[in-house]
Amino acid sequence: MKHKKLMTPGPSPVPSFLREVLAKEIIHHRTDEFRNILADAHQGLQSLLCTKNPVVILSASGTGAMEAAVSNLFSKGDKIIAISGGKFGQRWAEIANSFSLDVIEMKVEWGAAADCKKLEEIFNKNKGVKAVLTTLCETSTATVHDIENITKIAKKANAITVVDAISGLGQDKLLTDQWGVDIVVGGSQKGLMLPPGLSFVSVSDKAKSLMKESDLPKYYFDLKKALNKHKSNDTPYTPAVTIVAALAVALDALNKEGIEKRWEKFEKLAKATRAAAKALGLSILSSRPSASTTAIKLPDNIKSSQIVKILREKYGLAIAGGQAQLKDKIVRIAHMGWINAQDLISCFSLFEVALKEVGHQFKSGSSLVRLEEVIYG
Amino acid sequence: MKHKKLMTPGPSPVPSFLREVLAKEIIHHRTDEFRNILADAHQGLQSLLCTKNPVVILSASGTGAMEAAVSNLFSKGDKIIAISGGKFGQRWAEIANSFSLDVIEMKVEWGAAADCKKLEEIFNKNKGVKAVLTTLCETSTATVHDIENITKIAKKANAITVVDAISGLGQDKLLTDQWGVDIVVGGSQKGLMLPPGLSFVSVSDKAKSLMKESDLPKYYFDLKKALNKHKSNDTPYTPAVTIVAALAVALDALNKEGIEKRWEKFEKLAKATRAAAKALGLSILSSRPSASTTAIKLPDNIKSSQIVKILREKYGLAIAGGQAQLKDKIVRIAHMGWINAQDLISCFSLFEVALKEVGHQFKSGSSLVRLEEVIYG
Repeated sequence: MKHKKLMTPGPSPVPSFLREVLAKEIIHHRTDEFRNILADAHQGLQSLLCTKNPVVILSASGTGAMEAAVSNLFSKGDKIIAISGGKFGQRWAEIANSFSLDVIEMKVEWGAAADCKKLEEIFNKNKGVKAVLTTLCETSTATVHDIENITKIAKKANAITVVDAISGLGQDKLLTDQWGVDIVVGGSQKGLMLPPGLSFVSVSDKAKSLMKESDLPKYYFDLKKALNKHKSNDTPYTPAVTIVAALAVALDALNKEGIEKRWEKFEKLAKATRAAAKALGLSILSSRPSASTTAIKLPDNIKSSQIVKILREKYGLAIAGGQAQLKDKIVRIAHMGWINAQDLISCFSLFEVALKEVGHQFKSGSSLVRLEEVIYG
Repeated sequence: MKHKKLMTPGPSPVPSFLREVLAKEIIHHRTDEFRNILADAHQGLQSLLCTKNPVVILSASGTGAMEAAVSNLFSKGDKIIAISGGKFGQRWAEIANSFSLDVIEMKVEWGAAADCKKLEEIFNKNKGVKAVLTTLCETSTATVHDIENITKIAKKANAITVVDAISGLGQDKLLTDQWGVDIVVGGSQKGLMLPPGLSFVSVSDKAKSLMKESDLPKYYFDLKKALNKHKSNDTPYTPAVTIVAALAVALDALNKEGIEKRWEKFEKLAKATRAAAKALGLSILSSRPSASTTAIKLPDNIKSSQIVKILREKYGLAIAGGQAQLKDKIVRIAHMGWINAQDLISCFSLFEVALKEVGHQFKSGSSLVRLEEVIYG
């Protein structure tokens, strides 16, 4: 009978109007019925990503789409910069290394955003860099990199920009075409309110021309084939039909609300979350915090795994701890997709209870007061 | 208000007891709750595949798992035999070519099973072949290759056997360990009664030792990482949580009925389907027909696309036509997963109506009489 709530940065809650779609009878994928659904999903993704570029849907989780970007754009030995300030920036470097690229890993302190001047210096020192691979919201630190400026710098060096927007998409501002981002990678299980199983790749004309030269092996993630099928609202291989059907419905709902409105909403929720944490005497990890997730630093005497455990086991509330060097140092609270103000109020109420249990001192209810002030007031 | 029925060889119908699981609230994948589900799924897959080898679950459709087998087992220039007697045998050759293997494509007439003597000759002529890549049920022709003998021949040459069992699994007999099959690839959307989105790979010790030498690039489909996580019922990347949850329930149901019983059941349904087709004056394409799907040849004056269209548009019944050189020459009726005798009776009743509409002559109801005779008695 325990109530359960998911406030982790992916998977995030799937609302009942989408879970109902997941439970519908399956339809065949080589039919007009499915092609119409796919057409809706393709258009909806373009709206959400603010792009006229085609956005192909892959049946794989986000890492699969990240691999697709690498294996389709580059050739062995190609020079790329991977901005690495957390687990998912590191993943770009790992994937690129797996495919024998010449990887310049730009290390950024965890919790900080990439320093654009340093990036410019790296470009100046290293001629012939083909691309910069970076992250919209670095989920492990809840930090947003300055994609607009990173893209400008890359363009000056005639390099393309590849952005992992898996956890940021839908909350953190991303103007794909206006900023000139060549590749955006997304996933179904965060801001899109769906289960994991689908990922997306938007492809600019410049990225398409790079793809022509690529000599890396690929088959399932061959984007040329996927783009070709995309034209007729089809896929090269059997897609995850039920999740695609729910995706079309999710995108319709998201785009009806409007992406700008959603950015504002989550910016406000994120601001409120930061204010609430501060009211409890806690601080924010990130110097450029995300609108999708907030990473809250805990005092040295409190292990975040304790807090996560209490919330999960006693109260059915799932929030995330820290990963790697941030293990036990932070908690991460997601505000993405279907999560709203009421969820945050409820979350902080339990967070206060858990903090009290481990002996942290603060004024009861103070985080809730601040949440209300920022959100409603 | 139109009733709809899916009798295509994948996706195949998803029963309501599994669609209900797909509609459940999402759970986080890094929890004991999910690890228990994954443990059940892992065990269930071993039972279904008749193997003690670990079976890893990948969030991708079947082709992704086929690629995983190729990119993890081999190195550039490795010699392999691909048995190619239909679209999916060809796919093995295509994937292996994409990864620059030295591919010996053993061409088999579409509708025929691989001639094991010829395979032996190929092995004798070509020294150093590392593997034979083949198909349990070749979906495009509804033909089952003799996996038991193919494996024996490969073993003599010290080669491993890699079997695409995507559409055959659950209906066509496959004794992974007893026959000594090294790699079995499966998918969720056929005999497992689930939507597409998951695939599986079972890995023998010999395959594991080949994996150590492989130098092909891979990341998302890295089986070493997947096998390592498999030990603690975990996955390297976010899995398609909802389909995995339904998979555990599906496997429990399938294994409770028992795989041997299911082989018998579908063998009988397939036999009945062949008898029913013959009663209508039609013939069977395959010389070694599958228990999962039946391919029925139509007279030269009838295009199968006509029949498929009438059934789909007028009666909501989806069966498949032929692909590539079999386009318009055959229809394919699936009997897999959730499909049962009553579905076949209903399908043939409509098939008779469509055949009449295009002017084919036969005794009304004769296919239904034969179905009843073979199935019930």
